[in-house]
Amino acid sequence: MQAALEEARAADARDEVPVGAALVHSESGAIVMRASNRSIETSDPSAHAEMLAIRALCAELGVQRLPEYDLYVTLEPCTMCAGAIAFARIRRVVFGAGDPKGGAVVNGVKFFEQDTCHHKPMEIVSGLLEEECGDILRRFFRSKR
Amino acid sequence: MQAALEEARAADARDEVPVGAALVHSESGAIVMRASNRSIETSDPSAHAEMLAIRALCAELGVQRLPEYDLYVTLEPCTMCAGAIAFARIRRVVFGAGDPKGGAVVNGVKFFEQDTCHHKPMEIVSGLLEEECGDILRRFFRSKR
Repeated sequence: MQAALEEARAADARDEVPVGAALVHSESGAIVMRASNRSIETSDPSAHAEMLAIRALCAELGVQRLPEYDLYVTLEPCTMCAGAIAFARIRRVVFGAGDPKGGAVVNGVKFFEQDTCHHKPMEIVSGLLEEECGDILRRFFRSKR
Repeated sequence: MQAALEEARAADARDEVPVGAALVHSESGAIVMRASNRSIETSDPSAHAEMLAIRALCAELGVQRLPEYDLYVTLEPCTMCAGAIAFARIRRVVFGAGDPKGGAVVNGVKFFEQDTCHHKPMEIVSGLLEEECGDILRRFFRSKR
């Protein structure tokens, strides 16, 4: 999650919504991909941190599924990203701050609990480094007001 | 929807799940972007037809939002794509076949009805050329058995 937080800080420095993600090989614990939000930079409304990390690792490995990898992300994934996580068959999802307004894991549509979700991660952990992950976002949005 | 159907047939010919999409300028009616599923070809679990069409038009226009465009897609959007449609502020969504197993508009999480959805298209039309749109998919999956 420290790597994901570094990515969130990097997004902050680029004036993007500061969310970061890292993909970790479940068995070895090695961080194999990192990404942060680039929606503005790339003119891509789908360029969320976890979406970019999943796309990049899939492309690198030439696969569509990542069943041996865990996702760490500083903010609770949204509906779009929860869908992508399910399609990619991510093994574990660990997130920092919850997102009552846009989250889709423990908030909102709770996608992984639904019949139309075809893969539920074997473990979902919420609240890891919650304060740090949330603080970056709160500071960012406060500065925009 | 005929353009979206042509795209679905093109995906079929490439042995991808045959779903196609088109983006239309709401006022002029001009088709400005077309895309079809390329998940296998691009090793991208998020490379659904509507997602690719949205990404491509946003990139071309240098924007993250498409409030003046309507989306036509042969299959009911999934949870991931419904999220992307909301982020992109698509004006109208018109789809062909419903998808009880994975859809998220009139089936599943019915995302556009939820509090965590921050943009509901002004109109949602289902069932346009439903038979043709569904037949391509049924033939594809039958041939895989």
